[in-house]
Amino acid sequence: MVNRPVTFSEQVVAAIRSVIGSGSAVLHEPSFNGNEWLYLKECLDSTFVSSVGKFVDRFEADIAAFTGAKHAVAVVNGTAALHIALKLAGVQAGDEVLIPAFTFVATANAVTYCGATPHFVDSEEQTLGVDAPKLRDYLASHTEQRAGNCINRATGKIIRALVPMHTFGHPVDLDGLMAVAHDFTLALVEDAAESLGSYYHGRHTGTFGVLGTLSFNGNKTITTGGGGAILTDDEALARHAKHLTTTAKLPHAWEYRHDEIAYNYRMPNLNAALGCAQLEQLPAMLRAKRELFQRYQTALSPIPGVRLMAEPEGCQSNYWLQTLLLDPDHAAERDALLQATNAAGIMTRPAWILMHELAAFRESPRMDLATAQSLVQRLMNIPSSSGLAQNV
Amino acid sequence: MVNRPVTFSEQVVAAIRSVIGSGSAVLHEPSFNGNEWLYLKECLDSTFVSSVGKFVDRFEADIAAFTGAKHAVAVVNGTAALHIALKLAGVQAGDEVLIPAFTFVATANAVTYCGATPHFVDSEEQTLGVDAPKLRDYLASHTEQRAGNCINRATGKIIRALVPMHTFGHPVDLDGLMAVAHDFTLALVEDAAESLGSYYHGRHTGTFGVLGTLSFNGNKTITTGGGGAILTDDEALARHAKHLTTTAKLPHAWEYRHDEIAYNYRMPNLNAALGCAQLEQLPAMLRAKRELFQRYQTALSPIPGVRLMAEPEGCQSNYWLQTLLLDPDHAAERDALLQATNAAGIMTRPAWILMHELAAFRESPRMDLATAQSLVQRLMNIPSSSGLAQNV
Repeated sequence: MVNRPVTFSEQVVAAIRSVIGSGSAVLHEPSFNGNEWLYLKECLDSTFVSSVGKFVDRFEADIAAFTGAKHAVAVVNGTAALHIALKLAGVQAGDEVLIPAFTFVATANAVTYCGATPHFVDSEEQTLGVDAPKLRDYLASHTEQRAGNCINRATGKIIRALVPMHTFGHPVDLDGLMAVAHDFTLALVEDAAESLGSYYHGRHTGTFGVLGTLSFNGNKTITTGGGGAILTDDEALARHAKHLTTTAKLPHAWEYRHDEIAYNYRMPNLNAALGCAQLEQLPAMLRAKRELFQRYQTALSPIPGVRLMAEPEGCQSNYWLQTLLLDPDHAAERDALLQATNAAGIMTRPAWILMHELAAFRESPRMDLATAQSLVQRLMNIPSSSGLAQNV
Repeated sequence: MVNRPVTFSEQVVAAIRSVIGSGSAVLHEPSFNGNEWLYLKECLDSTFVSSVGKFVDRFEADIAAFTGAKHAVAVVNGTAALHIALKLAGVQAGDEVLIPAFTFVATANAVTYCGATPHFVDSEEQTLGVDAPKLRDYLASHTEQRAGNCINRATGKIIRALVPMHTFGHPVDLDGLMAVAHDFTLALVEDAAESLGSYYHGRHTGTFGVLGTLSFNGNKTITTGGGGAILTDDEALARHAKHLTTTAKLPHAWEYRHDEIAYNYRMPNLNAALGCAQLEQLPAMLRAKRELFQRYQTALSPIPGVRLMAEPEGCQSNYWLQTLLLDPDHAAERDALLQATNAAGIMTRPAWILMHELAAFRESPRMDLATAQSLVQRLMNIPSSSGLAQNV
């Protein structure tokens, strides 16, 4: 005799179980089904594991080819990529930078590394990303143009850039945000840490702004252990990005002349070797993650009060993290569902705490964040590894 | 008929050739003769290549055991280690930090990441490191104590810390510098990037200051691809170092609460796996590098006008980079020797350009740098890989 699930939590757990089978499942784990071992061994055998080696060049070329960006610069992680992208977008000490309150802390931290202050903006439910119309209204009423700069009337500071983030792999409203950036003289830098393999109207995320950034952390769609990349179509910016991430050393057989203050952010060749192999597997992983979405969709759609986050219209998501969104009248059940799923060995997680609620950013400027506040109370990520579909 | 070397350059080239044999030699290349491949494979098989995994914990424990530091925190590179060590030593925006002019640019850059200014000090010929007596005289005449702080009279700024660097693996005069740090209320942070396996009076470098830092870059004695570590005997500082290098996230099953602005500086498990295997090989590498020093010493000692840098008295050097020091009356021949050796396929390199000669640091405060200026004109590194002695 099988117990029929009766509570909301039991129904959701049963639906997830019907997709992932029995046994425990983490939120996201990498899969190494290709040339990972081969390339790592080749890297070791060459002894070029560090700052020199062919895998870094190849990984950068492969990332550029995959995303359609003219240039990609590989770095140690997504945070470092954001730091340098913001610097190259012109962010200076004393500036403000618009970022979603609903993001991982790296976005906000990278702003502070430039000596700037994050300025938090609201998100929309359709994409989970920055709400372009709401941002436009806010900027229209709270800023003014002075000498070609967008000035925050309340603080008197220059708002230099806008950094949308493609949450859990779902592309933001880029048309709307590009228009806002243009109309309010903001540099657009895309935080595409979560959206490798996601497309907005056929074009890869991270290639719309003046610069974009990727992450290859262990929990991402593909991993280099730790790693990130800066994307840009501007050759001068790409050269400068490479220069700034490699201690700004001028090329010379033996002279160590560095022509500006810079960083040691280069991705080691060892990590790039892993990345080259992972990138070969990416199309298969994206298919598997899409398949996983379909299976979850089928299993969850009969349950009232919850929906699975689907790619926005006109977009192709990488479905990095599958996301349940509870209806407002089921929000109160979210924490019980987190408990029930984790207790059942199904790892689930709410979204991040909104940035303006962290001690470090409590005093940062922000607009009304009603939608972000509603989203974080109703949302949770469920097991999303590509292997969950590949192995079934 | 063999041509007998007649010029100074020819004599030196012949002496180096007698040690390293025919064929070309780079300055320093890693050797992977142990469990490197095994551990990398184990890491890949576990799928824990990134921010979680047992190799990071093991590498930190192994580094602590090897150096005798109570705690070691593994990070992405030596620059990141220095940045966090300086921060934890209390370096704040507007401070000055005493560092040798004769160092790699990372030392100076890390100071700027804290919003502080490097203040350049001179080196001594015996150790190639900071000249303690000269620094003492300089501080006595150029600073004053105010409210427990060392104040630079010329700038009015607090000189917060002293960061000696153990050049090419040779320990600095730590007794002298610890006394200076004590007497002038400076935090002592050791940049031991180059001195893993070097000891001052039997104690490992990097363990004398409040914090010390290591590097495992590809050109170092052992490598993790890219990597570094923070050493300290202070448990609270070690905990804070781990916290600051891992986005300051508070432990929780699913909540993302970060309690301060922090960094993504953690060493990936993949790189730590390589490090664990390399560390097992370190004693053999150190023996080989010492053997290489002996062979070079024998070959070069008959040549007038040049000497091989030997470990300072009471110290044990790792002989990371073997160093030729020309007598002042031979300084003019240094560049010809660089040309001759590199043309012969023997990679050699002068030291770095002194920090105060880089555009970014031209305006930084500095003391008289006569010895450093003399050293960089007379010095060059010669092929130093442990494999050069192991393979003979």
